[in-house]
Amino acid sequence: MKPLQLALIGLGTVGTGVAKILTEHAERTSRRAGRPIEIRHAVVKNPDKPREIELPAGVVHTDVDKAINDPEVDVVVELIGGISPAREIVLNALKAGKSVVTANKALMCEYGDELFPVAREHGCTIGFEAAVAGGVPIVSGIGQALSGNQVTSIEAILNGTSNFILTRMLDADISYEEAVSEAQALGYAEADPAMDVDGTDAAQKLSLLMLLAGGTRIRPADFTRQGIDRLDLADLQYADELGYAVKLLAIAKLIDDRLEMHVQPTLVKYGRPLSAVDGPQNMIVVEADAVGKVWFAGPGAGMMPTASAVMADIIDAATGRAAETFRTLDLFGEGEPRELVPPSDVRMRYYFRFHVEDRPHVLADIADILGRNKISLASVMQHEAPEVEEGEIDSPFVVPLVVMTHHATEGQVGSAEKELMKLAALRNPWVRMAVAD
Amino acid sequence: MKPLQLALIGLGTVGTGVAKILTEHAERTSRRAGRPIEIRHAVVKNPDKPREIELPAGVVHTDVDKAINDPEVDVVVELIGGISPAREIVLNALKAGKSVVTANKALMCEYGDELFPVAREHGCTIGFEAAVAGGVPIVSGIGQALSGNQVTSIEAILNGTSNFILTRMLDADISYEEAVSEAQALGYAEADPAMDVDGTDAAQKLSLLMLLAGGTRIRPADFTRQGIDRLDLADLQYADELGYAVKLLAIAKLIDDRLEMHVQPTLVKYGRPLSAVDGPQNMIVVEADAVGKVWFAGPGAGMMPTASAVMADIIDAATGRAAETFRTLDLFGEGEPRELVPPSDVRMRYYFRFHVEDRPHVLADIADILGRNKISLASVMQHEAPEVEEGEIDSPFVVPLVVMTHHATEGQVGSAEKELMKLAALRNPWVRMAVAD
Repeated sequence: MKPLQLALIGLGTVGTGVAKILTEHAERTSRRAGRPIEIRHAVVKNPDKPREIELPAGVVHTDVDKAINDPEVDVVVELIGGISPAREIVLNALKAGKSVVTANKALMCEYGDELFPVAREHGCTIGFEAAVAGGVPIVSGIGQALSGNQVTSIEAILNGTSNFILTRMLDADISYEEAVSEAQALGYAEADPAMDVDGTDAAQKLSLLMLLAGGTRIRPADFTRQGIDRLDLADLQYADELGYAVKLLAIAKLIDDRLEMHVQPTLVKYGRPLSAVDGPQNMIVVEADAVGKVWFAGPGAGMMPTASAVMADIIDAATGRAAETFRTLDLFGEGEPRELVPPSDVRMRYYFRFHVEDRPHVLADIADILGRNKISLASVMQHEAPEVEEGEIDSPFVVPLVVMTHHATEGQVGSAEKELMKLAALRNPWVRMAVAD
Repeated sequence: MKPLQLALIGLGTVGTGVAKILTEHAERTSRRAGRPIEIRHAVVKNPDKPREIELPAGVVHTDVDKAINDPEVDVVVELIGGISPAREIVLNALKAGKSVVTANKALMCEYGDELFPVAREHGCTIGFEAAVAGGVPIVSGIGQALSGNQVTSIEAILNGTSNFILTRMLDADISYEEAVSEAQALGYAEADPAMDVDGTDAAQKLSLLMLLAGGTRIRPADFTRQGIDRLDLADLQYADELGYAVKLLAIAKLIDDRLEMHVQPTLVKYGRPLSAVDGPQNMIVVEADAVGKVWFAGPGAGMMPTASAVMADIIDAATGRAAETFRTLDLFGEGEPRELVPPSDVRMRYYFRFHVEDRPHVLADIADILGRNKISLASVMQHEAPEVEEGEIDSPFVVPLVVMTHHATEGQVGSAEKELMKLAALRNPWVRMAVAD
């Protein structure tokens, strides 16, 4: 059978991984794909840069247009990331009749509605297994393996950088800043880790997963998104003491045909599999009407794990499976439009760490405000403050007071917080995190 | 597009689940399959039996041949289980040009090499996602999603019945027999649970997974297989005290291009995800050369989870994906023949519980025999026996002595055991289990 001809756009970490598999395991790959797979072009910025992988002369060059307009090319593999020029390259490739495989979650999330119709119009496909959770096959998992189901909830750790940082802070007793430096030194975080630690990356991935799960497109800008970049080690330690791990949790739930979605640092009870996902790993817990709960976990990033996912899409394109999947997977099509539960109606449990002056009636005042807003307390933790004689120092000690609530709506909590702000014995700002049991 | 016409053979638990999804979610299913899916025949033993699901008149009948020879039928869904008459039905269906979807691991494992060539000859496909790990999409996971990889090891809990029994024994402090009765009462175990608890079921599933992972066919009869049916609660408790869960673990490892395979009760260290899989759940940990480690977990059996897997195969058949997968998945073809590591060369750690007479030098004698066979001790646990004056009773107390070894080959252990049998102070039989760190 005729070989499948690829144009790799980008030969960075993931591109090198893909090229490695294709050159080092050519026989195995061609057997599984039903035909040989050849790299016809590898487009790079600097062709003279020394590389881990040697490709035949003429393959590595800088001319994107030449690559995507080559009539011999079947599939363009976009591995440069970011929106521009990735968007233009993918658009031009589709218009030239090439199917696309990409690891670019930002592009899929933000411009999928532009790209998918172009692909359909030109009889091409787009594969993006590598765009969510790296080596974990969750795109095919939800899009194909669970296609007999209606997915009713997704709870996931989708950002390995954040998970590494949270794991290290607690394990090594270090600050957020120190853990970020470690993550950068180990290659788990970019020089500018903003998109990872502010929740954007996880929100884009969650948005894509919900699109796969029900054709429902909710943009990251439309749901609550909070990162780990304002977390204190102290809160991880209090949570630990209370029996919870703090994870950057991406949650989407179908509630009476409306969708609840948010990405935020969340307390997860020890004993639940999600609480035990450490370091740069990802885990996706999918609940669906027929199967019940299914867990997928593995490396969420990295050269070879991501290359593994890209290879799955390339092999799917080679066998012809991708065409069948793309035809029936109603992505960015009419889908099943669903309303978002307004943030103020989202019901969760909450963790608060207040800074209170160590004087009488403070706890009573806080409990009164929460109670009048229908928020009941599940537990309270206040460590003993040093004993001080009245008048011995000028101002009272400020001590941490940790409160866990029962379920309450975000609206109730917001209105309680307005009242709390008026309490003289309570210092601003306090810490609030969601709790997932 | 023309509807896909099904003949369901068997309308028991799983068949009813499939019929439920197809009738209750017809619109959703047809959207995902790209065409409507219709049940044209549902062949049962007793058409008058009251059923959970109502099908149109004429659909439910007892005539298998009529169903599989109906020219309108596209796919025969075999859900009666067992070898006969399932084998004949599947063979006849394939010969009549019908593709087959089945949940029958015994049939796939024992007769796949007969059935797959017949399917290819007649241009049909066989889907068996439901045959391994129920609702967990591990067949497509290994066969498709990880197709860019060489799988190098599989460690798995594949039998939910055994896992439920082991979980209940330790949690409820009950005997093996009591836990089996509970499992039967809850529908987790058959009236005759032999195939589940003696390791046969897990061995058949492991054999199928290794076939998917590398085209290597090792029959369950050719590797070590031991069930949970001779386990004592005491050993689960000693293991727990030492920090290990006892699981019926199915392991396959590629070692220097040879395969190590076995299914046996195995100690798994607490903290590892496999140790935390409780009740009737399954988990498969796949290690592969590109992706590293990936975890899949979920319900290993039950009406709707298994129906979910069957539906995935039916939808794959409807879209046309199944044909592409079947063409390139070299199952029961030439594959990559691999030698099995002889059982005597398999290296593991071991747990022993000896029954020893409480008198001097017994431990020294045991340690000496193990040591001379190059087996070194990792830990020893002997609880204090009551103090007895010499001559006070006729014979010495028999006390349990628990020994954990470092890595040793099965051959070394076997030869040590021959010597141990001669020790007068050691009562027969003793307990030996493998340890996976």
